[in-house]
Amino acid sequence: MAKVSAAVSYAVRETEVREFPFPDIEEDAGLLKVELCGICGSDWPQYNNYPRTRGPLILGHETVGVVDRIGKYAGARFGVKEGDRVALEEYLPCGHCRFCRTGDFRLCDETDTLNRTDTIRFGSTPVSVAPSLWGGYSQYQYLHRNSVFHKMPAHVSARLGTLALPLGNGVEWSCLQGGLKIGEAVVIQGPGQQGLACAVAAREAGASIVIVTGRSTPQDKKRLALARTLGATHTIDIDEEDLFETVADITGGEMADLVMDCSSGGPAAAIAAIRLARKRGRVILGGRSPDKKAEFDTDILVKKFLTVKGVRGHSWEAVELAIQIIASGKFPLDEMCTHVFPLAQTHEALMTVGGQGQPASIHCSIDPWR
Amino acid sequence: MAKVSAAVSYAVRETEVREFPFPDIEEDAGLLKVELCGICGSDWPQYNNYPRTRGPLILGHETVGVVDRIGKYAGARFGVKEGDRVALEEYLPCGHCRFCRTGDFRLCDETDTLNRTDTIRFGSTPVSVAPSLWGGYSQYQYLHRNSVFHKMPAHVSARLGTLALPLGNGVEWSCLQGGLKIGEAVVIQGPGQQGLACAVAAREAGASIVIVTGRSTPQDKKRLALARTLGATHTIDIDEEDLFETVADITGGEMADLVMDCSSGGPAAAIAAIRLARKRGRVILGGRSPDKKAEFDTDILVKKFLTVKGVRGHSWEAVELAIQIIASGKFPLDEMCTHVFPLAQTHEALMTVGGQGQPASIHCSIDPWR
Amino acid sequence: MAKVSAAVSYAVRETEVREFPFPDIEEDAGLLKVELCGICGSDWPQYNNYPRTRGPLILGHETVGVVDRIGKYAGARFGVKEGDRVALEEYLPCGHCRFCRTGDFRLCDETDTLNRTDTIRFGSTPVSVAPSLWGGYSQYQYLHRNSVFHKMPAHVSARLGTLALPLGNGVEWSCLQGGLKIGEAVVIQGPGQQGLACAVAAREAGASIVIVTGRSTPQDKKRLALARTLGATHTIDIDEEDLFETVADITGGEMADLVMDCSSGGPAAAIAAIRLARKRGRVILGGRSPDKKAEFDTDILVKKFLTVKGVRGHSWEAVELAIQIIASGKFPLDEMCTHVFPLAQTHEALMTVGGQGQPASIHCSIDPWR
Amino acid sequence: MAKVSAAVSYAVRETEVREFPFPDIEEDAGLLKVELCGICGSDWPQYNNYPRTRGPLILGHETVGVVDRIGKYAGARFGVKEGDRVALEEYLPCGHCRFCRTGDFRLCDETDTLNRTDTIRFGSTPVSVAPSLWGGYSQYQYLHRNSVFHKMPAHVSARLGTLALPLGNGVEWSCLQGGLKIGEAVVIQGPGQQGLACAVAAREAGASIVIVTGRSTPQDKKRLALARTLGATHTIDIDEEDLFETVADITGGEMADLVMDCSSGGPAAAIAAIRLARKRGRVILGGRSPDKKAEFDTDILVKKFLTVKGVRGHSWEAVELAIQIIASGKFPLDEMCTHVFPLAQTHEALMTVGGQGQPASIHCSIDPWR
Repeated sequence: MAKVSAAVSYAVRETEVREFPFPDIEEDAGLLKVELCGICGSDWPQYNNYPRTRGPLILGHETVGVVDRIGKYAGARFGVKEGDRVALEEYLPCGHCRFCRTGDFRLCDETDTLNRTDTIRFGSTPVSVAPSLWGGYSQYQYLHRNSVFHKMPAHVSARLGTLALPLGNGVEWSCLQGGLKIGEAVVIQGPGQQGLACAVAAREAGASIVIVTGRSTPQDKKRLALARTLGATHTIDIDEEDLFETVADITGGEMADLVMDCSSGGPAAAIAAIRLARKRGRVILGGRSPDKKAEFDTDILVKKFLTVKGVRGHSWEAVELAIQIIASGKFPLDEMCTHVFPLAQTHEALMTVGGQGQPASIHCSIDPWR
Repeated sequence: MAKVSAAVSYAVRETEVREFPFPDIEEDAGLLKVELCGICGSDWPQYNNYPRTRGPLILGHETVGVVDRIGKYAGARFGVKEGDRVALEEYLPCGHCRFCRTGDFRLCDETDTLNRTDTIRFGSTPVSVAPSLWGGYSQYQYLHRNSVFHKMPAHVSARLGTLALPLGNGVEWSCLQGGLKIGEAVVIQGPGQQGLACAVAAREAGASIVIVTGRSTPQDKKRLALARTLGATHTIDIDEEDLFETVADITGGEMADLVMDCSSGGPAAAIAAIRLARKRGRVILGGRSPDKKAEFDTDILVKKFLTVKGVRGHSWEAVELAIQIIASGKFPLDEMCTHVFPLAQTHEALMTVGGQGQPASIHCSIDPWR
Repeated sequence: MAKVSAAVSYAVRETEVREFPFPDIEEDAGLLKVELCGICGSDWPQYNNYPRTRGPLILGHETVGVVDRIGKYAGARFGVKEGDRVALEEYLPCGHCRFCRTGDFRLCDETDTLNRTDTIRFGSTPVSVAPSLWGGYSQYQYLHRNSVFHKMPAHVSARLGTLALPLGNGVEWSCLQGGLKIGEAVVIQGPGQQGLACAVAAREAGASIVIVTGRSTPQDKKRLALARTLGATHTIDIDEEDLFETVADITGGEMADLVMDCSSGGPAAAIAAIRLARKRGRVILGGRSPDKKAEFDTDILVKKFLTVKGVRGHSWEAVELAIQIIASGKFPLDEMCTHVFPLAQTHEALMTVGGQGQPASIHCSIDPWR
Repeated sequence: MAKVSAAVSYAVRETEVREFPFPDIEEDAGLLKVELCGICGSDWPQYNNYPRTRGPLILGHETVGVVDRIGKYAGARFGVKEGDRVALEEYLPCGHCRFCRTGDFRLCDETDTLNRTDTIRFGSTPVSVAPSLWGGYSQYQYLHRNSVFHKMPAHVSARLGTLALPLGNGVEWSCLQGGLKIGEAVVIQGPGQQGLACAVAAREAGASIVIVTGRSTPQDKKRLALARTLGATHTIDIDEEDLFETVADITGGEMADLVMDCSSGGPAAAIAAIRLARKRGRVILGGRSPDKKAEFDTDILVKKFLTVKGVRGHSWEAVELAIQIIASGKFPLDEMCTHVFPLAQTHEALMTVGGQGQPASIHCSIDPWR
């Protein structure tokens, strides 16, 4: 059978298309024919790190595709059949630890890539682990026995379909973790794909005020404009306006019921988030940062009776809800999908997501058949 | 009628008994004959602050007493009648703000003494505000129209009754805010009255592991011993043992489901609390501290999917539950009530609570009739 | 001073305008100048009952008005001042029972008119209780010391303002009690003002499917049309279509996450609601009925793992959210406000709400100044 | 290799020991060497039904045993290894439906034996389905690829270990579904193994009042006595005492915060449960019954603002908590384990659980090696 073309990131910020033999599949595994794979914001730090620390790998974990083959023991398990169109989650949960058994498989002890490095997950496993095809920037992706599937309706374009995971994060952070209730005022720090996804979810869940913040860069200006299109009631350029005064003005002095930091600003952004929250408010920290230094006044948490929650990724339910929102056509999500790169330009696509390639990008994806 | 004797803190760490005229009461107010008033841990920083910043005042807000008089308009409102034995809350909530209307009157905007200074509350209002008798270290305490009452069963001694508020905090922090579930492992940092109260509540709610931490001081050694008597399954002297290793050992490497900081350790204690929590765990910050500096890695919140909650005081429900626990006799709470001082020794009592008076104290109270 | 005109229901289905002396107010009370008072669906059974069981009374408890006077002791308590424009709740909670202290004052033991008859509440207290002006179909309404207020924005018409309570019920039932989450499928049985209010709230909270059911009467046909205008995605005429098959079709066989019975259908409607709910679904019973007979299979609750909740009225928070929705102008709520009757036609207005007066009514109100 | 002896229920209330060939196992399956298997209350109706409706089968689904073999593809999936001592759940969840993905695999659409009959589950699958060994009344039990395991500590006797599932139900119903909070008053209708398990869990979770009800039969008298030993604060013989008056007396007129029907009394028991609940209380319906007729007044749910929840089985977490309670030795659970029958007496054991065999039984089990 023909070869499989895939973009291998063989060194830090170095990628080339390589050919792999069409894989045999284990009896408890399967194979996906990739339609399109979105580029997550986390691909950028991973591109700067994994090829060195883990070895050459195929990045990409926001895959939409069609189930091509299923092994003898995999069918009952996967709950999908050959020919089904699906979105994949990046997680490959063990299925039996306390997190997997209680609906939080993203935290699976055995496969938690944030807390350990010796485990596999889509888009972060080196090609040295057979059969190599662990990432979505590839014509085919191997379906590990623990793959998690979501049915993708036929009428949803692949381009929109790649938003399933980022918008799933938005639903998870705003609604399922943030506990957003109708009528609340929300501030979202950072207008990247994650911040925009939170804005969409917040709007859908009935927030009365949705404020997205960004900076004076051309990229952020474009993103803030899109935020307004997607349902933000207000945007704030924090280089031009006083963040705290403006939020106070908008909320009649009350500040926000829910603040979500999607800005990778580390402790400084967390401290700003805490200042932006009203008494008895909630703060969701999603952004991560290498910077650890900040003068942190924990008394503010006490005085304002705040809840601060660190979050990661999405639950299965959140992705289902995201696909439902995408399929409803209620939001002009198409405008988030700014770029589709051919496989041969995977490097340029990654550089774009890292802010060093094409301008004005929000959500990009790779088409492995172009 | 006779005069009312009360201990007036007229300067920082200076108190004397003064006599006040027996007060007239407004038609929407009342008067309590004080049996005994407990000394809260917060009385110590207040003793070092309020006489200077607010003026001379009668401290004390853990009062048990008998309703002596009720004004014409106060009866229906108070829900108690003359002769009823009650515990009072320190809060004097406005009754109509969004916090009061939703069961969180402790956060009442109009009377929030943590976030403003121009308001009244029992035990922190100066004698210059008529009719002066706003604190519990007094034979009579004025019953403001917004007083919050709890019925105190006849068979509960006044000494035990003064635990209603601190144990109410324990119930609030462990159960109502901490969400403690049966079978969980809990770490409580700090073996003061607040930490011990959390231990009792955690035990009552079915925690399987209750660890209380303290230091090598004679006072803490005594308190840790009492913690074990009150239901702690383990105690850790953090000057002698490695805190993190010991908790890991006790929990089989899992760390704690719920960590409560009752140590006034500020950001450093908060950071320790976060390290002590297991993945998907919760951290309750109750202790406050003037120290604001710490190297804070917010990424840990994200990696461990933690919830951190700053808390203050108690809900009405928590105090009811506390009184129920006290009345049940299930715990040897008597051992927490180490000292009863006569009114004339209010200064010594406060110094004792501040660690500068009598040794080996835990919960102290003032008897205004001795 | 001038007299006060009010509509007194002096016998079952008999009402006349009477004049009352302008009242003196107690020092802990106040007086409201009524702008307009909405007619609740419950006014109809009350009109058929209270004049006989309680004596002549002024009905009406959905009042919008301006605070005219406040007694010496009432100002701090009410949290409003003379001249403020407000909506009133019907409840007059005691303020100190366990329900009042925990945010559920609608269930107040002392003033629970569903479970006792010897208590007062706006719109259901006879004129024999001084000073008589306990209902909203009057130029002035007495402000009992326990009155519950909501600020009403100036730009909201009084007509829309009278929706504060019914829409508050919709928010309470759909969101706060029903726990509606984004993406859910909801069935609402009964297209009256309560059902329509639930539909608005469900839509606002991000329900993906909102089905409202009704009958083939001209009145219901009009109401179902309005339901679609207000955000229902589907309506079902249960006389024309098979209710269960149609809901199954719309939901792809899944049935509803949340079913709300607003139809006063009693056990039969409850049983239908239970059939309409999907596995792990929730059922909210709001409608009441004198009919008690039905063959009830409790095993279905077990097999389908259902939660059934009986609900009444609204929380303070729900009414605040309702006013926020009204003020936002997002929904054409004006179409719900079909009739405004002058005071002299209060009887006809009540008959209309009871289905025996003017056709095609949904929400009616009384203007006491016309 | 040797044969496997198992008790086959080949007709309604007819059982004999048969020998089966030692099975080959599929590569995604395994084999358990059974130590002991408890008899669930549901075995009795199943014994009266399944041999006829499903064909001959090995009953039993409360198995404790040691993992004997694991197929090539099953090891990573099961999360256990050969030689591990475990308790099994009866469920064989598909792993990918919305219930399995959200922590409620007991409700798994594909394997829900309450809502469909064409599926497999331990203890209810006929021997005609290869390789026959689907029940626990057998020396070996086949480990289907979807088996759910719990580690069983070495120091826990197999007899106590068989309580993992019934006590898991108790934890699930009282705590996880019933939402029991400390200080609450609980009524449990029915003193069978399920009712006793709820009593243990309620006590562990800090209920202040735990009332268990039963009848005047010798069996119930014994069970009520055991209830008191296990932590019930009160028991009521409903043939001797007025149920409602007695509960009112015990609770000071408040009635119960939480009522759990474990009595298989159908609608009549449900109606009693609803009467026993206080305003804003919760009712858990666990018992099932063929009787469907009752005069049901749904208005009571509305007037009392009640939540009624139908429940089935247990979550994974509940069984883990149950094993933790068993292992703690805090409760004299040994007294619940009244009988151990040899394999050859499986029929007598089942008759005993059905109330037609040996007297004074509570929890019985089968030892397949005697």
